[in-house]
Amino acid sequence: MQQLKHHQNLIEQELRKVDLDGEPPELFRPVRYLLSFGGKRIRPVLCLMGCELFGGDRVHALYPAIGLEIFHNFTLVHDDIMDEALLRRGKPSVHHKWNKNIAILSGDLMQFQAAQFISKVDREILPEVLDLYNDMAIKVCQGQQWDINFESKTEITIGEYLEMIRLKTATLLATSLKMGAIIARTGKYQANEIYDFGINLGMSFQLQDDLLDTFGDKEKLGKKIGGDILANKKTYLLLKAFENADPDQKSELMALMEQKDMDGDKKISRVKLLFEDLDVKSQTEKVRDHYFREAFTNLNEINVAPGKIRSLQDLGYFLVKREK
Amino acid sequence: MQQLKHHQNLIEQELRKVDLDGEPPELFRPVRYLLSFGGKRIRPVLCLMGCELFGGDRVHALYPAIGLEIFHNFTLVHDDIMDEALLRRGKPSVHHKWNKNIAILSGDLMQFQAAQFISKVDREILPEVLDLYNDMAIKVCQGQQWDINFESKTEITIGEYLEMIRLKTATLLATSLKMGAIIARTGKYQANEIYDFGINLGMSFQLQDDLLDTFGDKEKLGKKIGGDILANKKTYLLLKAFENADPDQKSELMALMEQKDMDGDKKISRVKLLFEDLDVKSQTEKVRDHYFREAFTNLNEINVAPGKIRSLQDLGYFLVKREK
Repeated sequence: MQQLKHHQNLIEQELRKVDLDGEPPELFRPVRYLLSFGGKRIRPVLCLMGCELFGGDRVHALYPAIGLEIFHNFTLVHDDIMDEALLRRGKPSVHHKWNKNIAILSGDLMQFQAAQFISKVDREILPEVLDLYNDMAIKVCQGQQWDINFESKTEITIGEYLEMIRLKTATLLATSLKMGAIIARTGKYQANEIYDFGINLGMSFQLQDDLLDTFGDKEKLGKKIGGDILANKKTYLLLKAFENADPDQKSELMALMEQKDMDGDKKISRVKLLFEDLDVKSQTEKVRDHYFREAFTNLNEINVAPGKIRSLQDLGYFLVKREK
Repeated sequence: MQQLKHHQNLIEQELRKVDLDGEPPELFRPVRYLLSFGGKRIRPVLCLMGCELFGGDRVHALYPAIGLEIFHNFTLVHDDIMDEALLRRGKPSVHHKWNKNIAILSGDLMQFQAAQFISKVDREILPEVLDLYNDMAIKVCQGQQWDINFESKTEITIGEYLEMIRLKTATLLATSLKMGAIIARTGKYQANEIYDFGINLGMSFQLQDDLLDTFGDKEKLGKKIGGDILANKKTYLLLKAFENADPDQKSELMALMEQKDMDGDKKISRVKLLFEDLDVKSQTEKVRDHYFREAFTNLNEINVAPGKIRSLQDLGYFLVKREK
């Protein structure tokens, strides 16, 4: 984990150095505000690691890495408006602290700031990097729209859910790695292999997220358990529960979801009981581990010294075998 | 005007051909919806003309031109949310027809679609084109934020207003022309001259917009006159009126702006009367014409056969000496 910490520090340093300010302050302040929250900086770290894995100098990946972090933060601002989320990492979200218009517009600004940083690569690889980036950005929009659609849709298949998290979450992780690989001038085959590693890692990362929200430890996680259950969020767990349930259990689950007056803790514990009866936890862990193993298979396909793969393996464990 | 019509047709044809669809339909439908409204297609036409002016083949400017039109339409979707505008070109705005979340997200999508089209230029000029584009996009965000700030700010100078319309309106016109010029591989000096022409043309275009909204002809314009007055919009006209007014006239103007119950037509005619007393119309025309002349001075600095400049001059007259 030494290397992760080291890369995170590099990103923090660079973020403090880069110029993201301008006039009028209403437009630019939210950018600094959001970026100052910290966070794991997974995406820029993946970009640096993808570059180093293939023998590139991470210096060339720093600006694009910053671009990926700004892009990620743009999605947070706009998603928070759409989800009406008042908090982001325990602090007021941008539209809550300022207002919706400022949140829309500074999110837009961040998209163009991100594009500026992404473009700071050697001109010979610029077309390839841009294709990768814009393609990813559109996929993330698609994933977010599917996610919104799922809120009001009753019948969602597990396949549809997996496709949604692939678009919304996994694609950005995969793109971060592949961008680093392109910057290191690796060949197409290896770049695609590291992309697939990122997709599989991203899938297991999101499934672990779903698991922690319901079965995590409040103290370790630093937030209340059961938010997804309270919000009737159609996670893998819930969809699997419906798939496994007999007609009686289905009705019970439906009734719990429709409850408006029930005490929150009571709802959470009753849904969790049903999840246990339906073997949802271990089945979700199984799929999570399937993607995790697939990710490692991708890594093994990559033709670099085994020692070099180590830091990505560590990061994989850090992201998926986490308790917070 | 033959050439304008011809270029507009080219853009319409190309817009019909390009692939802007995808899943889920909620995300992609608003893009086609907005683009189907038509409009003058000024920005893409300027990109084609900028290219031809310097001897380039407009075929190479077509995709970037489409990108500029999509960018312009992205600003319309997000601006309409912020301004709570229910109509756009007489049809329901995107957030009104669907909802705010769809409008935010399909606006985001359009930004990335625009970036994809902008990137379809030869790789040797790609860095230059992207710098120009991203820089412009950030300026447009800045202009929009100033515009929003002005709504609640009481003291705005004419200088601040002019800077706002330069950022919000003129920069995109100038960028469209310069992008065409870069695609035609013209030199820096000429590319900057055509950019400055675009800025000056954009300034006079916006001032004419302000004039038409208050002094235009309802029949020719196809919309009600006086919208800016009713909305207390701080246009050049209003700021000039305040600058020219004596204390009594100032109080009268303030009182009219604060009126909540007054009949709309009465408010419009009383404000217009004050504008006439204060010589606002002819003074605004004077500034508009100043920028218009400056634009033509820029054109004369450009070293191409006089015949080639003709279509840009025509377009200038079309944009500024218009009655609708």
